Amino acid sequence: MKKVNTSIITIGDELLMGQTINTNSAWMSQELNRIGIWVHRQITIGDNWNDIWNVLQDETSLSDIIILTGGLGPTADDITKPLLCKYFGGQLIMNEEALQNIKNIFTRLNRPLIERNMKQAEVPDSCSVLQNRRGTAPGMLFSRDGKIIISLPGVPYEMKGLMEASVIPYLKNEFVLPTICYKTMVTAGKGESFIAEQLVDFEKSLPHYISLAYLPAYVIVKLRLKAIGENKKKLEKELHSYFEILKKLVAEILVSDEDKRAEELIGEQLIKSGKTVATAESCTGGYIAHLISSVPGASNYFKGSMVSYSNEIKENVLNVSPQTLEKFGAVSEEVVSEMFYSIIEKMKVEYAIAVSGIMGPLGDSNEKQVGTVWIAVGSKERMITKKLVLPFDRTKNIESTSQLAIILLLKIIPKN
Amino acid sequence: MKKVNTSIITIGDELLMGQTINTNSAWMSQELNRIGIWVHRQITIGDNWNDIWNVLQDETSLSDIIILTGGLGPTADDITKPLLCKYFGGQLIMNEEALQNIKNIFTRLNRPLIERNMKQAEVPDSCSVLQNRRGTAPGMLFSRDGKIIISLPGVPYEMKGLMEASVIPYLKNEFVLPTICYKTMVTAGKGESFIAEQLVDFEKSLPHYISLAYLPAYVIVKLRLKAIGENKKKLEKELHSYFEILKKLVAEILVSDEDKRAEELIGEQLIKSGKTVATAESCTGGYIAHLISSVPGASNYFKGSMVSYSNEIKENVLNVSPQTLEKFGAVSEEVVSEMFYSIIEKMKVEYAIAVSGIMGPLGDSNEKQVGTVWIAVGSKERMITKKLVLPFDRTKNIESTSQLAIILLLKIIPKN
Repeated sequence: MKKVNTSIITIGDELLMGQTINTNSAWMSQELNRIGIWVHRQITIGDNWNDIWNVLQDETSLSDIIILTGGLGPTADDITKPLLCKYFGGQLIMNEEALQNIKNIFTRLNRPLIERNMKQAEVPDSCSVLQNRRGTAPGMLFSRDGKIIISLPGVPYEMKGLMEASVIPYLKNEFVLPTICYKTMVTAGKGESFIAEQLVDFEKSLPHYISLAYLPAYVIVKLRLKAIGENKKKLEKELHSYFEILKKLVAEILVSDEDKRAEELIGEQLIKSGKTVATAESCTGGYIAHLISSVPGASNYFKGSMVSYSNEIKENVLNVSPQTLEKFGAVSEEVVSEMFYSIIEKMKVEYAIAVSGIMGPLGDSNEKQVGTVWIAVGSKERMITKKLVLPFDRTKNIESTSQLAIILLLKIIPKN
Repeated sequence: MKKVNTSIITIGDELLMGQTINTNSAWMSQELNRIGIWVHRQITIGDNWNDIWNVLQDETSLSDIIILTGGLGPTADDITKPLLCKYFGGQLIMNEEALQNIKNIFTRLNRPLIERNMKQAEVPDSCSVLQNRRGTAPGMLFSRDGKIIISLPGVPYEMKGLMEASVIPYLKNEFVLPTICYKTMVTAGKGESFIAEQLVDFEKSLPHYISLAYLPAYVIVKLRLKAIGENKKKLEKELHSYFEILKKLVAEILVSDEDKRAEELIGEQLIKSGKTVATAESCTGGYIAHLISSVPGASNYFKGSMVSYSNEIKENVLNVSPQTLEKFGAVSEEVVSEMFYSIIEKMKVEYAIAVSGIMGPLGDSNEKQVGTVWIAVGSKERMITKKLVLPFDRTKNIESTSQLAIILLLKIIPKN
């Protein structure tokens, strides 16, 4: 089966100036991957006639499918449509269905319909029209020398609508496509290179159509197995067995055999067991509470948090003893332990996370090193503490500490 | 003055599969724009020898500067370095400074240092090394036929460090660049198109070398004036006077005439006045506390936060009266007011923020609409409340509420 290659071309000066982050390319690539179409190039260029013309020529020579987004708006700097009309020949003609769609939209918004908007319903007679139910600019599909060229509006919401309703179904039916299966697991505690070292033989043992990818993100490293072939059942079966082998190989650092965030997994387990959680935070300033409560439905198991940023609050609100603070300093195993038991009691929860540390850039009066963090997690019956010394900047130190604290708790909560 | 053109090449299968959104290209483009270098092409390709080789050839023929990110990791799929070595000739040699840097990082993380990691300190002898203080993969700079080719790691945090410390200073000094001046102000309370409507005449009055950009971000809209020319003094003087006119035109929605985050500005004002702040949060789950404490030095004025996610905690920890909760519901002006005065007293602060709302996707038992939020901000002497009904998803609702609450407080704290 021939590999179907795609180039995605995003058009817009706002992308080249970095004012807009290009999310369209990632989203389209994911959708195309899912049906077995490989995106091998993503190109971004400006609203410039020659640049667009040249890129069209280059990419049609390299790919089977070329998808363009952007440059279809009603304003003068939107030149994609006239360019495509020139490139593929023919002339602009009014498309009645597109015009009716525009009229409907303006009636709904009850806005006056002006010439400029109606012109959006004009399309080159050399294309098949992809009707855009979410906006005024229709999509266009051209075919030449066995290559497919598709032009979509740049507004993500409209582009997605056209991809789902028209482009994906068309491509599935137009090309003979392979089956692609993924399985992803989450690990924590070891670096990418260290894991790779452990998995050298495993990688060698994989058939050529199954590949392992490392997706690192500070505290965690995701391991993703990908299989490409034709027989879905057979692929999934094989992928599953290699996935199980991989799980055993990384057992000690395995966080989850699903591609989910640790805070989601904690939520699922707490809902199952009907237990609750709270946090007592110093240096993370509420970020752990934010992560836990960012999960929809968190109100079912997350009771709250005490952010005691100053020692005064640690004493008066969290009842950490002044002697402990005096003797060991705020960033100490003794203090996080007291914070831990205090929050468990005050919020009447089964599980808790307590954190105290120095995130930098500046240290505090006592001589502890910037990046030093003490974490306490667990239940009243079983609390564990851990010391970190983080090398990042303030933001990354906060994020890493929070993520790690949640992962530590996840490992303590019984699976069911 | 010749326009300096740049191509940004981001390398990585995870980008082509859409698993990672390409934020590097946007960030780098912004930084390069700021010093007068125009990015005219952004290309993303996979970890594939031929693709990288060909793209290098293509882009060097089109651009003065080529910056690559990604593919410098320690694993087998990272092939950028050997490829560059082959492309520019020469051989890989150990760079002692880079090696020392790697050793330091592993010592700090106290992780075992293996062969694979040390190999990251090897660089082609045909390049100048850009030392990476934030990670193990050094940057590399090549020069050929007057073209500059720079290779950076793909981890955003490391890439940014190298751009700021090495790449930007190098390029500023290597090329004759136009003078570009920016002045940015922050507004809140009106939408982009509404502001644009107000500023039609102002925009018309601008000379061709001064432009106005709208940078919207949910709650706030930044207005940025940009001037391009050669005489720095003259440009700055002109820019200043237009900036002052603009400030008057948007006076009622102006948050700050500096390009700073509201939480930074709050910090500056509180430090000046020696006052302190705390938060009582329900639906924002600690995100406001996180924003305030994300500012270096926040411990000088931020005492802490109570995240009362459940009504039980609102009653027992924040002493909100059960009657008020019963009568008006958790999402009410009455409840946030009680939360506000309670946190002021408990944490002995001059200023506070209290928030209660429903972020979705699901509503709660009482019939209040998803997206409904009550905010209380100010001091014991002067508290103001505000009701919002937000249209976004859970994440955006949390972020917008938090940002808006901080902006509301900023407006109340006396400027000095």
